[in-house]
Amino acid sequence: MSSSNAQSLVLGNVRLGADQPPQEIFIEDGVISSIGRNTNAAHRVDGNGGLVIPALVDSHAHLDTTLWGTAWRPHTGKPGDIRLMIENERKNRRTLEPVAVRIARLVKAYEDSGTLHVRSHVQIDPEVGLTHLEGIISAVEGSSLTVEIVAFPQMGVLSEPGTEKLLEEAVNHGANRVGGIDPAGWDRDPVRHIDIVFGIADRTGCGVDIHLHDGGDLGAFEVSLIIERTRSLGMEGRVTISHCFCLAEVTDALQGRLISRMADAGVSLTTVAPGNRVPLPLRRLAEHGVAVGLGHDGTRDLWWPYGNGDLLERAMLLAYRSGFRTDEDLELAFNVATHGGARVLNLEGYGVMVGARADLVVVPASLPVEAVVGHPPRSVVISRGRLVRGTLA
Amino acid sequence: MSSSNAQSLVLGNVRLGADQPPQEIFIEDGVISSIGRNTNAAHRVDGNGGLVIPALVDSHAHLDTTLWGTAWRPHTGKPGDIRLMIENERKNRRTLEPVAVRIARLVKAYEDSGTLHVRSHVQIDPEVGLTHLEGIISAVEGSSLTVEIVAFPQMGVLSEPGTEKLLEEAVNHGANRVGGIDPAGWDRDPVRHIDIVFGIADRTGCGVDIHLHDGGDLGAFEVSLIIERTRSLGMEGRVTISHCFCLAEVTDALQGRLISRMADAGVSLTTVAPGNRVPLPLRRLAEHGVAVGLGHDGTRDLWWPYGNGDLLERAMLLAYRSGFRTDEDLELAFNVATHGGARVLNLEGYGVMVGARADLVVVPASLPVEAVVGHPPRSVVISRGRLVRGTLA
Repeated sequence: MSSSNAQSLVLGNVRLGADQPPQEIFIEDGVISSIGRNTNAAHRVDGNGGLVIPALVDSHAHLDTTLWGTAWRPHTGKPGDIRLMIENERKNRRTLEPVAVRIARLVKAYEDSGTLHVRSHVQIDPEVGLTHLEGIISAVEGSSLTVEIVAFPQMGVLSEPGTEKLLEEAVNHGANRVGGIDPAGWDRDPVRHIDIVFGIADRTGCGVDIHLHDGGDLGAFEVSLIIERTRSLGMEGRVTISHCFCLAEVTDALQGRLISRMADAGVSLTTVAPGNRVPLPLRRLAEHGVAVGLGHDGTRDLWWPYGNGDLLERAMLLAYRSGFRTDEDLELAFNVATHGGARVLNLEGYGVMVGARADLVVVPASLPVEAVVGHPPRSVVISRGRLVRGTLA
Repeated sequence: MSSSNAQSLVLGNVRLGADQPPQEIFIEDGVISSIGRNTNAAHRVDGNGGLVIPALVDSHAHLDTTLWGTAWRPHTGKPGDIRLMIENERKNRRTLEPVAVRIARLVKAYEDSGTLHVRSHVQIDPEVGLTHLEGIISAVEGSSLTVEIVAFPQMGVLSEPGTEKLLEEAVNHGANRVGGIDPAGWDRDPVRHIDIVFGIADRTGCGVDIHLHDGGDLGAFEVSLIIERTRSLGMEGRVTISHCFCLAEVTDALQGRLISRMADAGVSLTTVAPGNRVPLPLRRLAEHGVAVGLGHDGTRDLWWPYGNGDLLERAMLLAYRSGFRTDEDLELAFNVATHGGARVLNLEGYGVMVGARADLVVVPASLPVEAVVGHPPRSVVISRGRLVRGTLA
């Protein structure tokens, strides 16, 4: 693909929306320099009249757990019991190939689908130390993916003495954020857990992304603790709550108050759209301006067998699960897989516009909502101006 | 494809399950004549070591409503209100291309995915008369699909005087079953509605398939009415209830009683796995031996934008929505898309076995549950011994 590593490239014959004429997108040094007609460049790729969209954003992945591309392995956990699921992970992960080997197979699937921006949690605990962190960094180096890494205490922080120190070391060795997991339900002390996580963020200047499966009023209490610390530490725009099932489970009035406070504190959310949980209230979150991103969670790992690297298919799953039928609703699903995720990741220069980074995907569809519903194979994928999928004319 | 319309064909290098050696399936006159090694025939297609499964069964489709292959049309109904959805259908269907033209485009998508057995409801009412029935019959003639047709009173039976007579005419002109729709919630008189439907079945000898969206205890009451008539008319094995949301909504005890009575009466169920309804209790239904099939419902029509002809993807949606992770659970989803649907349709000679009809699909997967989760494009599709997808060696 070195021939496509050109300084300039034209993505021709693509549409930016329904009923729009075909356009040419001119790319120089990895950036969109103009959109229009009659451009020319040394290298040209034909979009065949397809829809061009910005690269998809997976804002909640666990790249280090994947078994993608290996022989089918029956699920051995106990779905519904987070404690037994964690024990299953702990017991079985020792038997797997090295992290970098497993991730390398999955990167190709992400690239093929145009899912080029990823926030991946990576397991940090006394047993694995920083080895997963090192594995992910080496696996994505030189790929087309931009990967933001969360130092994630899968086994707990308080439950595993020594983890706090390791999390801080991870942030000092390449992790971009510090994570947490069910401060009450798993680690048994929500205030201490959340204070430790925010303490690391405060000392290192990194962002926060906490896994919160705890439901109903317990989860809501933890959300309020997270919002309070976000505000008191001035961390607006740099804190994410992942899953946050509780938001869909509390009363309508409490849900409204939490969303309003999240919006004020700049706390963002990610969902992986699990089929058997109530979906997040995307319409209400959008009305309040809360940034929401979509993720794969693990891809065919010890937690579940789903996922394939394609965020557009996951957006369909979210829409399908939410009962979305109108274009207005389907657009919500498209947005969390693209612009919403870009906000969660604080991506700059994201979008199909002049001056944006040339991370572009062409889908044989007439408009974004049709792309979500049909999620057909991508015809062209361009990362930073470099052709990843598709052929030069 | 005439060259493949051979009297004998070998499907070679396929596996019947994980850890099984590659086999050769010998097909003569549309029937599997042997499975083993060292067979030979004039024509051979290579399965590349993939998994061979019987053709997928769509046991609840509305082929006559599809807009597949046409320009994107934003949804104009009011999801959640069946009355407004029916009005939306009535108003807009007049503007569509003829039924046969629309179905012809969709048939190709079904064939490509190996979804070769279909039970399609077809709208019968005073406005459209038998035109939809004629359209579907002409569209599927000569295709690779086996289509069973249900004369379906989309606009109601009691609500639309003249429909009863038309339904009976439809059965006398090619429809295989008579349908019904929400006898209480839509047609306002469950006993009269159900008696009319069963009366037509009794006079003509056809089977029954009733749409039941009515929820909770109301729906459960209608289920019991249907079971009673099934038994009193000796129609065991020839009555289906479609959707049957109520079964997942009643108390555990009532659910158990209903399932037990369905099993005794040989009443089968179909689901289209809608994302925002509680899934049917597949495990409990299987334990009692109730036949359950999976369907597409409409495919990109005035009711919803989902569907693409691929029952394996729909099986993944069902599994995902149900929270299935273990092989044991995922197998339930595979079964409703194959053997369960075959039971609902009373298909004879169904399966990958000697003597069965050679309706076969090859999937690049190691076992059925992996095929469900990944639902990759099919490499070979054979209908009645004729190659529909794939190339002769």
